[in-house]
Amino acid sequence: MADHISKQFDMELETIRTRVLQMGGLVEQQILSAIDALMSGDIAKFDKVIAEDALVNSMEVTIDDDCQHIIARRQPAASDLRIIITVIKTITDLERIGDEAQKIARMGKTIYQSERYQMPRFREIRKMAEVALAMLRRALDAFARLDASAALELAEEDMRLDDDFAAELRQLITFMMEDPRTISMSIDTLFISKAIERIGDHSKNISEYVVYLVKGKDIRHTSLEDIKRETLGH
Amino acid sequence: MADHISKQFDMELETIRTRVLQMGGLVEQQILSAIDALMSGDIAKFDKVIAEDALVNSMEVTIDDDCQHIIARRQPAASDLRIIITVIKTITDLERIGDEAQKIARMGKTIYQSERYQMPRFREIRKMAEVALAMLRRALDAFARLDASAALELAEEDMRLDDDFAAELRQLITFMMEDPRTISMSIDTLFISKAIERIGDHSKNISEYVVYLVKGKDIRHTSLEDIKRETLGH
Repeated sequence: MADHISKQFDMELETIRTRVLQMGGLVEQQILSAIDALMSGDIAKFDKVIAEDALVNSMEVTIDDDCQHIIARRQPAASDLRIIITVIKTITDLERIGDEAQKIARMGKTIYQSERYQMPRFREIRKMAEVALAMLRRALDAFARLDASAALELAEEDMRLDDDFAAELRQLITFMMEDPRTISMSIDTLFISKAIERIGDHSKNISEYVVYLVKGKDIRHTSLEDIKRETLGH
Repeated sequence: MADHISKQFDMELETIRTRVLQMGGLVEQQILSAIDALMSGDIAKFDKVIAEDALVNSMEVTIDDDCQHIIARRQPAASDLRIIITVIKTITDLERIGDEAQKIARMGKTIYQSERYQMPRFREIRKMAEVALAMLRRALDAFARLDASAALELAEEDMRLDDDFAAELRQLITFMMEDPRTISMSIDTLFISKAIERIGDHSKNISEYVVYLVKGKDIRHTSLEDIKRETLGH
């Protein structure tokens, strides 16, 4: 009987983990669509991303509810509990990544629908988005495989993305100074690159929850040097 | 014996709630100091805000750990569990409000340390910060008194703050177009007002967790109209 209950509990946990990965897949798709629409100016695609954020939100609420029910009903032991708390935190970040995808779509729509003095430049934005998407995939993969080593790589990629954002900002300031008519569009572009930079932050957060889950050690707010020492064991 | 354990448990919960409020007080102080320094250009004060973010971070880690230990050791029933999950979520938002205060200080320092063509204009920023601070205080108060009605007011104030941000953005774009030499400073000022707008978002999040705690109903991602209907019971 106890064995039966335990198997059922394992199945419940497995179901929740699968749904976190589905939610992650949806969020990834939202970013991809937003960036695609940014390159092509496809307004219908922007609208679809904006509308489908509601789906991401409802997935968060449902998984969160399920987690709380499981804790209350199963009274899980420490290790299982850590998994559930990790899920609760992870879906908060996934939901906010979804918000950022929606913001990218809103800004993109604004840019394409307003009067333009020159074509928008999204080459650097696309590159940044590729880095952020790779980070998200790696974070989800770390969550799926309970792989704590990914956190180190994500911390390094996040620093790269922060540098990319700073470079894009300098570039945009140069454009604005050269031609003040580009100011409105440049500000919208700036918010898009900020949204991408935040997707990187949230992905890094997720990888840090995985480290806490696997190693029982909280590496949030720890410097990259300290994380290296931790992960590499010296 | 069970009664003794239960009393001790209540005390543990009370201690945690007190520390959340202390963390909230510290975060509030960080915002106040950052805005004060913004008005006076006090670099030492900026530096203090930047340095003390580490204290906010460590409070989050400590409270989070304590919550997880309590759940594992006490196997709390559903209602107590909801309190603990609320705390875990609340401190995440408080920590991010601390990050925003630190960002304001960093941007302010940049503005005062760079060559300026005109005095920075922070009057609107200060007004926005007052709204955001009032929201944070109200959210903490709702948490302390388990008052679900505050969520409605916070949702309305958050919309006001979003409007203020949009107005500030339009204002800054006008400045930049009139005098492109103000572009760099205007962008820094823009990021400061964005940080304040996010403090409002996080405060609203906290008030929504309190509603969930009190009413067992998740109002995140619900429209203001729906929240009104919920809260006012019609």
